[in-house]
Amino acid sequence: MTDSVVRELEISRLSTRETDFEARLESLLCWEGVSSSEVQQRVDEIIEAVKTRGDTALVEYSNRFDRLSASSMEELTLGAERLRKAFDGLPEDQRNALAAAAERIRAYHQHQRPESWRYTEADGSVLGQQVTPLDRAGIYVPGGKAAYPSSVLMNAIPAHVAGVREIVMVVPTPDGVLNELVLAAAHLAGVDHVFTIGGAQAVAALAYGTETVPRVDKIVGPGNIYVATAKRAVFGQVGIDMIAGPSEILVVSDGGTNPEWLAMDLFSQAEHDEDAQAILVGWDAEHLAAVESAMARLLPTMEREAIIRVSLKARGATILCADREEAVALINRIAPEHLELSIEEPESLLPDIRHAGAIFMGRYTAEALGDYCAGPNHVLPTSGTARFSSPLGVYDFQKRSSIIHCSPDGASQLGRTAAVLARGESLTAHARSAEYRIKD
Amino acid sequence: MTDSVVRELEISRLSTRETDFEARLESLLCWEGVSSSEVQQRVDEIIEAVKTRGDTALVEYSNRFDRLSASSMEELTLGAERLRKAFDGLPEDQRNALAAAAERIRAYHQHQRPESWRYTEADGSVLGQQVTPLDRAGIYVPGGKAAYPSSVLMNAIPAHVAGVREIVMVVPTPDGVLNELVLAAAHLAGVDHVFTIGGAQAVAALAYGTETVPRVDKIVGPGNIYVATAKRAVFGQVGIDMIAGPSEILVVSDGGTNPEWLAMDLFSQAEHDEDAQAILVGWDAEHLAAVESAMARLLPTMEREAIIRVSLKARGATILCADREEAVALINRIAPEHLELSIEEPESLLPDIRHAGAIFMGRYTAEALGDYCAGPNHVLPTSGTARFSSPLGVYDFQKRSSIIHCSPDGASQLGRTAAVLARGESLTAHARSAEYRIKD
Repeated sequence: MTDSVVRELEISRLSTRETDFEARLESLLCWEGVSSSEVQQRVDEIIEAVKTRGDTALVEYSNRFDRLSASSMEELTLGAERLRKAFDGLPEDQRNALAAAAERIRAYHQHQRPESWRYTEADGSVLGQQVTPLDRAGIYVPGGKAAYPSSVLMNAIPAHVAGVREIVMVVPTPDGVLNELVLAAAHLAGVDHVFTIGGAQAVAALAYGTETVPRVDKIVGPGNIYVATAKRAVFGQVGIDMIAGPSEILVVSDGGTNPEWLAMDLFSQAEHDEDAQAILVGWDAEHLAAVESAMARLLPTMEREAIIRVSLKARGATILCADREEAVALINRIAPEHLELSIEEPESLLPDIRHAGAIFMGRYTAEALGDYCAGPNHVLPTSGTARFSSPLGVYDFQKRSSIIHCSPDGASQLGRTAAVLARGESLTAHARSAEYRIKD
Repeated sequence: MTDSVVRELEISRLSTRETDFEARLESLLCWEGVSSSEVQQRVDEIIEAVKTRGDTALVEYSNRFDRLSASSMEELTLGAERLRKAFDGLPEDQRNALAAAAERIRAYHQHQRPESWRYTEADGSVLGQQVTPLDRAGIYVPGGKAAYPSSVLMNAIPAHVAGVREIVMVVPTPDGVLNELVLAAAHLAGVDHVFTIGGAQAVAALAYGTETVPRVDKIVGPGNIYVATAKRAVFGQVGIDMIAGPSEILVVSDGGTNPEWLAMDLFSQAEHDEDAQAILVGWDAEHLAAVESAMARLLPTMEREAIIRVSLKARGATILCADREEAVALINRIAPEHLELSIEEPESLLPDIRHAGAIFMGRYTAEALGDYCAGPNHVLPTSGTARFSSPLGVYDFQKRSSIIHCSPDGASQLGRTAAVLARGESLTAHARSAEYRIKD
């Protein structure tokens, strides 16, 4: 498949010293996953069909889009027993690795459980917040080439740790192909049922429920443009996670890490798909050149050479900056999904880093470790959204209720304040409701 | 304005015993704030115009929609000094009430600050999560009849407590009318600048930035259908809060609360607007009738009688149920924005309540107290979205970064697991990146 002639490595080279640096950086980072109005319209139709015709529409779409010949949703449903069987049937090394990963992911996420809290005021009034899990979560897992068991663990385990009562997974099976690793991961992660459906129709089914698919409270997990468009459309009816853009990494190197290690770290990002983005930042020009050489040398040995080559050419870059301070400014400007600090004393940089999905510290923490088994979640904010969002976590599967219990004295005191403000807003029923509780 | 003849109170009466109860409840709760494709298209045009023409477009739209004659954004900008002046100019009782409310809201939200955490494993690897505030938040405040200073406090104070560096507020001024209470609240809440712009154009300006309006990381605050549609469109480019539906309350009474108090509590919800929803649930039929009588008696004395009457007729209800257990089931089915537990020993019900935005406990805790000054946020999940979302809080203005710092031993151990899983996913660059860190 790949060209047998070793070709030059094509990757953008930027320097913060160049006058057009800001413009070049902007164009490098630019990404808008816009749905065409055609996609939008098809998705709206699919959602409407599933909403009104339920299972019948689901089966029709699955047969059409995934080239199946199912006659009912029963044929597109897998129970807990089937998932366990998939796990038991794995080769031993995969079974152990998957179990070890699940165990570490679970342990890490246990630390994220927010606590209910309350406090009592001098007049006896109680204020607080009660934390409760969602009743039901839906996990979308892509089928086909991007069917990743690690994704199942990362999406479902936080829901399980949160105490979600029922975890439903959907995964399309194009041409009927089931991925046993994906099912095994579902077993380990505490998934209750699997429906082998996908696309906008699966999102609609989870959002509104059908005869067979239960309505969920939140839908998480990555998908193609149809899935993303459907998630945006049902947002509000159910909760959704962030709509993910292509995956990216920013590696900052001080020049002390083996160039081959860094080359492979960049490749591990670039191999995801042609839109993935791998950027190396450093202040040692010779070292950047050494990493480029290592990339050129190693690239022909990669199984996914073709994808890596396209991704590096289209969206990859090496950026030469003046020093550590400039590197920090670049980090906060880019707000990367993955940040690898391949430097001496990475801790010293940490307080200055304001925006990053996950921070991989030191020369040994390859980003790939975080993708699978270090423990933290690999579902991370992409395309600069680390400015305002967080890794997927237990907190995404819980919600809070405010608690207010006024004592008679507290209600009397608060009533006076509330009444003044309510009258200032011309809401007199509010005022009178508060005033009933004022003591004379 | 209001009819001087005392009319019958029109409100739906439901009973869980009726065979069509579930269908009637469903239709009572049904609410879909769907944007027409016409609204969608106008919003898309406005966003595109602001994105490409910046301030010029902003000024044009503001002049057109708010009937202004501004010649530049400078005329639509208010600095900190103007906000302080608004606060200083208030009548003393309003100034004191606003300051007291701000103080209590701040105190409550201080309890919500999540902490960064980390732990060290036996092999020296460190895992954790670092919590940081957003750089910049945008607060949307509706103008005209729904200009509520309490909304400013509730949206901006959590951002301020979170440590957001810059808080920008937008508020339209139809016909140039400024609300001094709103500006005073902005002063108290720590708002840095105010732009007197609104609608989809204000949302677009906050999402993409213009020459004058800085791009923010998250937009919060309620608005009309254009604002809601624009927020949905820019979601992903910036963070947004939930898209709010009409406000609602579910009052559960055991029969021991003064019917007039309950009538006024229901009115305080219904007076918001014609779509607001006030529902009373109880197992004492005589008591429900007594509350209805109180409503009929008090309604003609209300300043916002007309709105209350329409809202109660269209969306209000009393629901007779069998007992406390059925009431709890109804609460969880409805997942109300506001839940008033006007019962003896409300604490005993709390563990069974799975979904509610805010819970007002006991006979003294009027919901109106929570709207203004009890402390908890009044921005709450509506239309059943308490199933999966939370009150606005400090956590909405912060985000987390995962921290992973593997020791050489840790990286070696994890590398073996990661390599097996990566090869299982055919991602060999991932595997080789991990394998470089395995010790021989």
